[in-house]
Amino acid sequence: MPMSTTGPLDPRAGHLVRRFVLAERPTAGIEDGTFRMEVSPRSPLQRGQARVEPLYISLDPAMRSWLDDRPSYVPPVPIGAVMRARGVGRVVESRSAEPTLEVGTLVVGQLGWQEESVIGEGAHDLRVVPPGTDREIRAELGMLGNAGLTAWVGVGIGEPKPGETFVVTGAAGAVGSTAGQIAKKRGARVVGIAGGPRKCAVLTETLGFDAAVDYTSADWRSALGAAVPDGVDVLFENVGGEVFEGVIDRMNDHARIALCGLISTYNDTGGHSGPSNFRQFVTKRIRAEGFIVLDHLEEMENARCELRRLLHAGEMVMLETILDGFEELPAALRGLFDGTNLGKMVVRVGR
Amino acid sequence: MPMSTTGPLDPRAGHLVRRFVLAERPTAGIEDGTFRMEVSPRSPLQRGQARVEPLYISLDPAMRSWLDDRPSYVPPVPIGAVMRARGVGRVVESRSAEPTLEVGTLVVGQLGWQEESVIGEGAHDLRVVPPGTDREIRAELGMLGNAGLTAWVGVGIGEPKPGETFVVTGAAGAVGSTAGQIAKKRGARVVGIAGGPRKCAVLTETLGFDAAVDYTSADWRSALGAAVPDGVDVLFENVGGEVFEGVIDRMNDHARIALCGLISTYNDTGGHSGPSNFRQFVTKRIRAEGFIVLDHLEEMENARCELRRLLHAGEMVMLETILDGFEELPAALRGLFDGTNLGKMVVRVGR
Repeated sequence: MPMSTTGPLDPRAGHLVRRFVLAERPTAGIEDGTFRMEVSPRSPLQRGQARVEPLYISLDPAMRSWLDDRPSYVPPVPIGAVMRARGVGRVVESRSAEPTLEVGTLVVGQLGWQEESVIGEGAHDLRVVPPGTDREIRAELGMLGNAGLTAWVGVGIGEPKPGETFVVTGAAGAVGSTAGQIAKKRGARVVGIAGGPRKCAVLTETLGFDAAVDYTSADWRSALGAAVPDGVDVLFENVGGEVFEGVIDRMNDHARIALCGLISTYNDTGGHSGPSNFRQFVTKRIRAEGFIVLDHLEEMENARCELRRLLHAGEMVMLETILDGFEELPAALRGLFDGTNLGKMVVRVGR
Repeated sequence: MPMSTTGPLDPRAGHLVRRFVLAERPTAGIEDGTFRMEVSPRSPLQRGQARVEPLYISLDPAMRSWLDDRPSYVPPVPIGAVMRARGVGRVVESRSAEPTLEVGTLVVGQLGWQEESVIGEGAHDLRVVPPGTDREIRAELGMLGNAGLTAWVGVGIGEPKPGETFVVTGAAGAVGSTAGQIAKKRGARVVGIAGGPRKCAVLTETLGFDAAVDYTSADWRSALGAAVPDGVDVLFENVGGEVFEGVIDRMNDHARIALCGLISTYNDTGGHSGPSNFRQFVTKRIRAEGFIVLDHLEEMENARCELRRLLHAGEMVMLETILDGFEELPAALRGLFDGTNLGKMVVRVGR
């Protein structure tokens, strides 16, 4: 039952838990009224249940599409329901006999935008996370989580061969920064497209990309041309819009596009999401393939194993942006569309 | 040297040959001034040469793109050059020792829009056509030629499985009518989209398609919905534009698009050629693949062999539209974009 946050029960006393529910569907970008915070008392656990408190909550561009009431690969979040999100948390109380739900265990799964999740008996999607440093724990939401697998699957679809030119848009994001590094390991020449000189510097200096193009600069088209002197063989597409079109113009015959997302169009309502030069898909015999990480969970263990090895060996770098405080969640999600994040965006909510 | 067609030398006397050259590049559709007829005397053959006179000249939507001065998979036709086209013809005079070029032999290849081709020694693209009925000879330009192979390759890319729904646009054209029949042989439920009730009746009554949708009717969207009650698994796309978008809206997850052409956009100059609902490529994990028949010539013999067997056994039907007279060539090409043709469009020019 919703209560005011200024009532007689102070949420900081620990008896109350906060959650964000979807208040209204945004017509374009996320607004102040999109989410509503609700506060309610903790409920006692039933036999077989366990209480999980999140440490970090993951923000992901796909979450925007869950706010719209239209068919997609996961159902929309209902109005009034807790916002869906992955998180990594700790079991703080348990009346369950499952080893996964033993007090103190770290778990990752759909914890939502709430300060606690009560997990019932039977099937749930929680996976135990091995103990580690804070950074290693956060990696379960990023490079070793869905973002990492998304990058892995998309590079597989694009099939860059040694010496080929691999372009990734949204290159400083969680998925893009990982995809570019995987392609680099496979011998491709890697060019990242990102917004702003700071992000571009990180791509070439920290991640070892061969070139970076700042799409916010006036001459990005000629910069792109200079960055891909032999044309583009593979595009890992996260963004869509004009930059997507610019890369298509540079594509070689038989190029491949791994269509991961079109973040620039997610806030449009009914805008034109197809590239104006789509005709080149025919003339250049381009293969474009949309993919969703949820279809590839059987590859997860292999991918995570390899990425964990590279990450721990220092052969790959995990970029991240961490905001502090549960109340920052709506702003953090909005930030993904303002381009404020570098790498994986998470909100730290655990004490 | 160009001459007037009303000069003292009558072209019908056989001493003069007519040709159409590209006079100016069209800005949109083909106009009266796009091509110019030129007439010149027959030149005597040199040793090693042969003279081929066309019987039928093939018209194909891709020819429109050869008129534009922009990069494509074949170079544009230069201004002042004879219009490029495939044709089937007969060797009428020969000073060549090649068996292919023996007088009386039927050949198929790039004969152009001209009343004779002089073929030199050495490499040429002419292939001998077995003797047959007029209809069998024409098939070399249609179902047993590039149109047939295009259909064959595209169905292979779309991979329809038995029971899946296969939609083809431009379904009454040379490629579309063949593609639908091949998909039917592979056990798919086949739905054709074409312009007008006459074409639609041919699809279901003559070709055995399971359903046909007339995109010129006001309620084509609901007709499409009724024709694909289980959604669309494979699209063989020839047209582009609004109908393409309508089919994407009906696509199932993991649908495939064989991108053969986008004829509705060829006459646009700078228009938006991408589907407005391109975002669904991601959410539905659609694979779209552009292809060009010229990349698949190694499959030609297998495809032709199988298609010839089906055609001769009466298990497939070849639709065709035949115009009479060399001078009809520009109008015939234009007709492909007006939707006047049923099946393969050819012009009969032989005596």
